[in-house]
Amino acid sequence: MRHTTGWQASGGGGLRRASLVRRDLRADDIAVRVDYCGVCHTDLHAVAAHPGPGSPPVVPGHEFTGVVTATGPDVSSFDVGDRVAVGNIVASCGTCDPCRAGQENFCRQFPMLTYGGTDRHDGMTTLGAFSREYVVREGFAYHLPDGLDAASAAPLLCAGITVWEPLRALDVGPGSRVAVVGLGGLGHLAVKLAVALGATTTVITRSKGKADDARALGAHETLVSSDPEQMAAARDRFDVVLDTISAPHELRPYLHLVAMDGTLSLLGHLGTVSVDVLDLLIGRKHLSSAGSGGRPATAELLAFCARHGITADVEVLPSGRINDAFDRLERGDVRYRFVLDLADLDAAR
Amino acid sequence: MRHTTGWQASGGGGLRRASLVRRDLRADDIAVRVDYCGVCHTDLHAVAAHPGPGSPPVVPGHEFTGVVTATGPDVSSFDVGDRVAVGNIVASCGTCDPCRAGQENFCRQFPMLTYGGTDRHDGMTTLGAFSREYVVREGFAYHLPDGLDAASAAPLLCAGITVWEPLRALDVGPGSRVAVVGLGGLGHLAVKLAVALGATTTVITRSKGKADDARALGAHETLVSSDPEQMAAARDRFDVVLDTISAPHELRPYLHLVAMDGTLSLLGHLGTVSVDVLDLLIGRKHLSSAGSGGRPATAELLAFCARHGITADVEVLPSGRINDAFDRLERGDVRYRFVLDLADLDAAR
Repeated sequence: MRHTTGWQASGGGGLRRASLVRRDLRADDIAVRVDYCGVCHTDLHAVAAHPGPGSPPVVPGHEFTGVVTATGPDVSSFDVGDRVAVGNIVASCGTCDPCRAGQENFCRQFPMLTYGGTDRHDGMTTLGAFSREYVVREGFAYHLPDGLDAASAAPLLCAGITVWEPLRALDVGPGSRVAVVGLGGLGHLAVKLAVALGATTTVITRSKGKADDARALGAHETLVSSDPEQMAAARDRFDVVLDTISAPHELRPYLHLVAMDGTLSLLGHLGTVSVDVLDLLIGRKHLSSAGSGGRPATAELLAFCARHGITADVEVLPSGRINDAFDRLERGDVRYRFVLDLADLDAAR
Repeated sequence: MRHTTGWQASGGGGLRRASLVRRDLRADDIAVRVDYCGVCHTDLHAVAAHPGPGSPPVVPGHEFTGVVTATGPDVSSFDVGDRVAVGNIVASCGTCDPCRAGQENFCRQFPMLTYGGTDRHDGMTTLGAFSREYVVREGFAYHLPDGLDAASAAPLLCAGITVWEPLRALDVGPGSRVAVVGLGGLGHLAVKLAVALGATTTVITRSKGKADDARALGAHETLVSSDPEQMAAARDRFDVVLDTISAPHELRPYLHLVAMDGTLSLLGHLGTVSVDVLDLLIGRKHLSSAGSGGRPATAELLAFCARHGITADVEVLPSGRINDAFDRLERGDVRYRFVLDLADLDAAR
């Protein structure tokens, strides 16, 4: 076994520093020194749900970048020293229709998650990348393109791919009219990507104060959702509305903004929602969702971001401040994604 | 005013014969002798909701065929003696984006309905086609193509266009895999049209007994929804699932049948539905709806049906038996659409 250090859920929503083990490298594994890992809402939920000592360990973290430190004998795509990026999926069955179509995120046997998954070979629960080392099959690691900053690129691997998939599946490009609801980790990347794809891009936010932020991200327009006149004037206007709000909320106001044959894609709140079918019928509108992405789309996203100079707007914190980051994330106090710098784990405690 | 006779809601879900008036022909109006009118679930609901004498009259009927008996001076498309068909919309604003796009069914000012609507000129409530005469703007009447039987073509104007619109909007054609849930008025026409469009077409029904019926309609396969093994084997299989069930029901079993990037279109039950967003996320599935259709699509449907020899499977009853038809429709005892023959209204009572 390989030994490393990381941040483990300790019950009550907190994390504590802990010694962790990683598997010895299998033939197609690479070992990655984790340099940067983004902090996702999912991490918050996973840690909050952890009952504390005695339960199986939870180490969050599923959007990270780092450097290859060792390779298994069959590894062909990576060398020691390569910059890499890894997202929230580290294996899939490889044989079902979605896997063969490059949509490992929809694997019929469920994709193996970067943390909280069960390894198909050794039966162990996977531990995430709030940790100085991660061991992963080379097939689920991506070369981090030159020119992308390792810290601010980390969130592309979860937040980025989650908004990239629907933009691509819904064929967003020049001439598309896209609205992004909510300006957080997902939303701010959705704006940058939609703009770079050539779409006319509108941010929909509760607070007027975000108009400058939206403009700085490249948005062409901001709509204030609490202003009934603005919302009424925008009725039936957008081909694609990406709803990144993470809390439960009414869908009707956002369905009304969708143009004929357009789509409201739910990316933030993944619970049960209530829909009046007439809000779909009138204008033949679609309700959809997306999350994570397959390997081809992830590689495509990274190449696109390198070409367009896109990374997340991040606040980088030493990993020792993870509990602060969680507190602030819960309050929505972040522009727009926290990224942990794991280097502080090298120091003796 | 013009005088005619029809069937008017009398409270308690019943209808009684009544004398009705129609407007004098405006310049662009035609008068139609109504020969046949289909009986739709909507009619049942409208009559059930009617409180009886003293309330504004309700005369149902919004899918009918007949013959032109008079024309206004500006009418250019119809002559006396022409066979015509009329659906559930008889006017729209004509100036909003949906109207200009030929989607009068989504008119921003709401389309004027064949019954229960308010006439924009005289402010009168429209009375439907369970009546021997109807007066309509020529722009909302269609030539009934030669070769289409006037009785069995009537349901094309509501049930038919309601299933045609999503089939066309979702680009169903050769190679498409379509499932039709429910084999009633909408469902049986959906099967015929999907088959004629070249799709591999599957009927999903609760009762094994309908397999022969489905085959007779041209379906390639039948799935029994109460058989968990059959449903599991069909998971992620269909590009388009048209759900024509009119009662409230769980959507999950049908969402599971939808293939990646495919669509579940709700056509029967138009109330509020509950959806687990993960059922949309996994496989990037779409939930949609449709109802009625625009003028170009309606004309296209009639031409397509003439070319392929498609009409509804109907049971024709003299209009005097409308109350029987309602009772049987409520019990689901019809294959697959009742059509009233209005000729009996010519006789003195």
